[in-house]
Amino acid sequence: MATQMQQSFTRAPTTTKYNAAHPVCALGPEEISYASELIRSLWPEHTDLRFKTITLDEPPKALLLPYFQAEREGRSLPHIDRKAFTSYYIRNTDRFHEAIINLSTGKVENNVRLGANIHGNGDYEEILLIEKNALEDERVKAEIAKLNLPEGTVVCADPWIYGSDGMNDDERLYQVFLYMRDPSNPSEDDSCHYAFPLPISPVLECNTYKVIRVDLLPTGKDNTIKPTSAWKPVPPNEYISEHQDLRKDLKPLHVVQPEGSSFTIEPTGNNTMQTISWQKWQFHLHYNAREGPVLFNVQYDGRPLFYRVSLSDMNIPYADPRQPFLRKSAFDLGDAGAGAMANNLQLGCDCLGNIQYVSSTIADDKGTPVPLDNCVCVHEQDGGIGWKHTNYRTGRAAVTRNRELVLQTIITVSNYEYILAYIFNQVGEFTYEVRATGVLSTQPIDHELCGENGEGVPWGTVVHPGVLATHHQHVFSLRIDPNIGSLTEGNQLVYSEAHPMPIDDFNPHGTGYTATDTVVTHSSGLDLAPDANRVFKIVNPNQKNKINGKQIGYKIMAPPFQKILSAPESFNYKRAEFSSNNIYVTKYADHELYAGGWYTNQSRGGTGVRSWANRKDDVAGGKHGEDLVVFVQFGINHIPRIEDFPVMPCEKISVHLKPVNFFDKNPGLDVPPSEQVFNKSTKAEEVAHQQGGSVEMEVGKGGECCGTASVNAKLQKLDI
Amino acid sequence: MATQMQQSFTRAPTTTKYNAAHPVCALGPEEISYASELIRSLWPEHTDLRFKTITLDEPPKALLLPYFQAEREGRSLPHIDRKAFTSYYIRNTDRFHEAIINLSTGKVENNVRLGANIHGNGDYEEILLIEKNALEDERVKAEIAKLNLPEGTVVCADPWIYGSDGMNDDERLYQVFLYMRDPSNPSEDDSCHYAFPLPISPVLECNTYKVIRVDLLPTGKDNTIKPTSAWKPVPPNEYISEHQDLRKDLKPLHVVQPEGSSFTIEPTGNNTMQTISWQKWQFHLHYNAREGPVLFNVQYDGRPLFYRVSLSDMNIPYADPRQPFLRKSAFDLGDAGAGAMANNLQLGCDCLGNIQYVSSTIADDKGTPVPLDNCVCVHEQDGGIGWKHTNYRTGRAAVTRNRELVLQTIITVSNYEYILAYIFNQVGEFTYEVRATGVLSTQPIDHELCGENGEGVPWGTVVHPGVLATHHQHVFSLRIDPNIGSLTEGNQLVYSEAHPMPIDDFNPHGTGYTATDTVVTHSSGLDLAPDANRVFKIVNPNQKNKINGKQIGYKIMAPPFQKILSAPESFNYKRAEFSSNNIYVTKYADHELYAGGWYTNQSRGGTGVRSWANRKDDVAGGKHGEDLVVFVQFGINHIPRIEDFPVMPCEKISVHLKPVNFFDKNPGLDVPPSEQVFNKSTKAEEVAHQQGGSVEMEVGKGGECCGTASVNAKLQKLDI
Repeated sequence: MATQMQQSFTRAPTTTKYNAAHPVCALGPEEISYASELIRSLWPEHTDLRFKTITLDEPPKALLLPYFQAEREGRSLPHIDRKAFTSYYIRNTDRFHEAIINLSTGKVENNVRLGANIHGNGDYEEILLIEKNALEDERVKAEIAKLNLPEGTVVCADPWIYGSDGMNDDERLYQVFLYMRDPSNPSEDDSCHYAFPLPISPVLECNTYKVIRVDLLPTGKDNTIKPTSAWKPVPPNEYISEHQDLRKDLKPLHVVQPEGSSFTIEPTGNNTMQTISWQKWQFHLHYNAREGPVLFNVQYDGRPLFYRVSLSDMNIPYADPRQPFLRKSAFDLGDAGAGAMANNLQLGCDCLGNIQYVSSTIADDKGTPVPLDNCVCVHEQDGGIGWKHTNYRTGRAAVTRNRELVLQTIITVSNYEYILAYIFNQVGEFTYEVRATGVLSTQPIDHELCGENGEGVPWGTVVHPGVLATHHQHVFSLRIDPNIGSLTEGNQLVYSEAHPMPIDDFNPHGTGYTATDTVVTHSSGLDLAPDANRVFKIVNPNQKNKINGKQIGYKIMAPPFQKILSAPESFNYKRAEFSSNNIYVTKYADHELYAGGWYTNQSRGGTGVRSWANRKDDVAGGKHGEDLVVFVQFGINHIPRIEDFPVMPCEKISVHLKPVNFFDKNPGLDVPPSEQVFNKSTKAEEVAHQQGGSVEMEVGKGGECCGTASVNAKLQKLDI
Repeated sequence: MATQMQQSFTRAPTTTKYNAAHPVCALGPEEISYASELIRSLWPEHTDLRFKTITLDEPPKALLLPYFQAEREGRSLPHIDRKAFTSYYIRNTDRFHEAIINLSTGKVENNVRLGANIHGNGDYEEILLIEKNALEDERVKAEIAKLNLPEGTVVCADPWIYGSDGMNDDERLYQVFLYMRDPSNPSEDDSCHYAFPLPISPVLECNTYKVIRVDLLPTGKDNTIKPTSAWKPVPPNEYISEHQDLRKDLKPLHVVQPEGSSFTIEPTGNNTMQTISWQKWQFHLHYNAREGPVLFNVQYDGRPLFYRVSLSDMNIPYADPRQPFLRKSAFDLGDAGAGAMANNLQLGCDCLGNIQYVSSTIADDKGTPVPLDNCVCVHEQDGGIGWKHTNYRTGRAAVTRNRELVLQTIITVSNYEYILAYIFNQVGEFTYEVRATGVLSTQPIDHELCGENGEGVPWGTVVHPGVLATHHQHVFSLRIDPNIGSLTEGNQLVYSEAHPMPIDDFNPHGTGYTATDTVVTHSSGLDLAPDANRVFKIVNPNQKNKINGKQIGYKIMAPPFQKILSAPESFNYKRAEFSSNNIYVTKYADHELYAGGWYTNQSRGGTGVRSWANRKDDVAGGKHGEDLVVFVQFGINHIPRIEDFPVMPCEKISVHLKPVNFFDKNPGLDVPPSEQVFNKSTKAEEVAHQQGGSVEMEVGKGGECCGTASVNAKLQKLDI
């Protein structure tokens, strides 16, 4: 979970006027403290509360949109009260509440106890307690003893969200998976314990956080649970560098920006929100504990594109049908909080070039503000050639490079990492990129099933002796609240398809084909159809392109993926309301932000985007002025390769949003040409000369090779 | 067409022993001259030949494989005769021949005249002649006169491969599309003439290259041909920089490699072949006029992966069903030659960092060698984070960057550009990347159909007043001749799918799913199935992974695309033999290199990969030792956006090949950690200080903003 929560909050309090900040500023430290004070004041003295969430209660669109309009038109800005949303337990009970706190008036406007099967997310302090209590439990110790582990072996506990199976899981629970560190190297705190999974899984409840049950894990081809027996030694499988024979032939590559970056960041409200401007793009960057970075009021060259963009949800169901694994189905945003789990990004480690870091503040379980340093890094990168044409008649090449702006956040969810990035370019294109990396969540498997002649199991891959990495799906939901071309006019969702023309006198050879657009009139879930070249577009039906009469719009380029494999009657399917279509379109409603529902921990389903889409609301937009929201799903069915262990090479997946007849020509024609005087590249031989002949090969005008140099090269190679 | 053919070949001849070079060396200049001499010697004196191709006749696999084995085992290398393949016409006739020339023995081994409907590719000299003759034809001049073009207007001719419609197209023909440059700026040689298409299309034959017919183009919604009438003025639409108001706020970004590159290039045979080594990869780089760069004997860490990899073919059929547009269906490799059309890459314009250029030599129509300078650039790039894991217990982050090796070639096919790249990374992954850019091939459309209220036509997009960009498909075929894990053992093609397990006692909640592999036993065409997560893998059934018993292999990650839309009875479909499946697997046969057939110009079909696959050869591989070849298709259905004109922002499409249980763990664990001491990144404020306070914002430890600095930022912004 969060890697920064250890830190105590040290910033000297500054005086914030709770009305002064921009309405999309995240809650500042003082606002968080004030919110928790106000909630405590509702309860008898010494009532101990465990806060699960204290975050900005975003203003309803009916208030925020006029604010953006006033900003746009330079009119005086309407007043919007600052409000906080909180969810909390009476500590050591199952009494779970949510409340809205008006920070401007100092009043709690709403404070309700939530009903059955609504549970709060995990929090860092709780996770540590679960680890401790699981390992200190006598029944657990007794089972571990049966393993006859070598003297000094360190056992680790990975707490897991319990999931749902409808079997005695009404109360909030944790399941814990046990591992050990390399027994031959017990002092290595960063030993990869996922190479040593143990067949013991304690279950804890969340009032006293005590073990209520110790599950033993099936390790064969069937459901058989064998009694815990002596551990069979296996070699370690470490990822940390001191355990590797590192490559010595990689030479440094620096990204140097002698004049700094091309973007500007203007902070607001003690840096609780940033307004970022770059290459005609402008938007507000908001950050919260659940979604991490959120973009508001995204504009290009002053033209509105998106009211709000964020990663809405994520689900990772696993393929092993046996207890307790069948419950492994994580919702990293709702169960734990993507924003809360952000890494503290380090200069020169997580990105190259000229970097600016953005920090934020979240609340801990006591309602105390906690800093999240460097949770977003902002930098530019070179994206290769932007466009090129060579006139073969004159030989003149016109070429630009594609400079990109990247906002990167890296989250660690226990064993796993996600690298999340918003990427903007110079031709009005916007990309959301996910890189999946980190360590696979592993489980023990009998040695007979492993090795060159082992048959394994069909729901997972053996990645190390005695170690199974179970297949799992990653399903992501990107929420796009568009306002293409206007803050006020409605948008439409349209899909374009290409179809062959009938063979007739007009199409005698059967070579003709056409592109047709279909308007999505009602909220629904829809799918891609690569064989029809189906592409979804968000258009503004009230604004036509002056040159070709097409509606201005943006197309959504998302890769097809296999939808959730769990059966429709399963809790996996019911809970992951965004997992069964590529696209959902809904009529806008305040607070419908999270595709899997507001409370995902041990959820039962029925509260997410599938349900909203099923309202069949009119989303035809345009003149009716209906306001729609589009959820774009993408994902990976991760059939693990052994190459994904002990740490997984990044698997990259992206959603692109590209203008379609939004501009009147290529909007990047004004990007300066790509020229050596600006780019300052070097030829191999020049660099070589700079450093005295360490040259691989020398290429002369005609392309012939200089023998001596190539001999040097061989010597040079041997030197390495 | 080729942008370098103007150059005369100036290199001083060196003495080459035609037996000395490596068998995959491209033909050197002397070999090309010798080959054309030997062909000329077959004919009566003064017989004028027009050479279409003079290229290496690659040794049959039965000879080359043992050579690679001998290299591998350090044994003495078998002798392989150097041979050239040529195709040529008796100039000014339709008599077309092909021949094999043994350069080692000085004998022409085979010289045959080719039959009906087999035509040679276009060549640069021919293209220039077509342009000249089209514009000088009196009938063409007479039609142009009817346009009443402004005094001094420059008309340009774009020759097009004629295509096939079976209507009087047995002889080799050219169709020519006419355009004009901006009449208000006639001296601008680089004016974008595609913004001024004219409705006149001369057709020329290829014996005397004379106009045989002048077609008039339909410009409305139907087939009606209107008499040529006065041209209606429209504004220009230029892409060159001096016609733009260039952005002034983009700051330089340099890629600096102070110690040079990490790769070595060892040239062989007067630089007619290069052996490239980088980060455990090693392969031979061969270059020819048709395919451009070709990789031979690709190995990772000394383990064989691919015998030969190349772009095999490309087809671009257009959607307008009317004459003459229905014949627009280009095969850029077979009709013109991807290698021959390579740009001369310029330092700091086409790539960043420390660049090494590779040059080559091709033959012109007279059989004379012509240099292709800088047709491939070799450089490294940073691919973002390679892998990362943060141990939340200790806070330690382990992270590497993903360094990539890029071999880039850029080809200009008249109006259009393709940026073709082989990309290697540090975890054994190999990517083939295509970026489509350049200028759309345009045609005239009536002004009534354009503008804000114009209805346009459903087979194209109006991109400028009076200018239609017709929909078209790009279908690419990547040929992979694998030898995964062994030079000698057979490989298999397998596809993996994921399926839900039945709901039963073992899978009571319906959450389980499995991955299953299916062997492709016979040569065939196969498709992707995203809903089944179908992934194709090339495996070596004779080598199992020691840890998990799976066959070692590489998976093919290619994006789904819409197959050719032309009807199966159309010439478009018949000719584009690779256009109707995502994957073809064939039994290896020498000379089956080009998925659309050896001679694509006005071809009739029946000679490409669809036909080879239909042999239903046994490709089960493994013990049988069958040798298979895999063709991977990918593509774009390009429904033009107005943003794609007057020059198109790169559209990127990639095929990834990733190891699957080929290694025993992540092969990139030994990549050095990503550390600031190596990467030398900078923080925004540091750079700012270096240059005296030109800072956008100052971020302190706690993340609060320094007001003064942010004021400086605003001033700074105004200064720009």
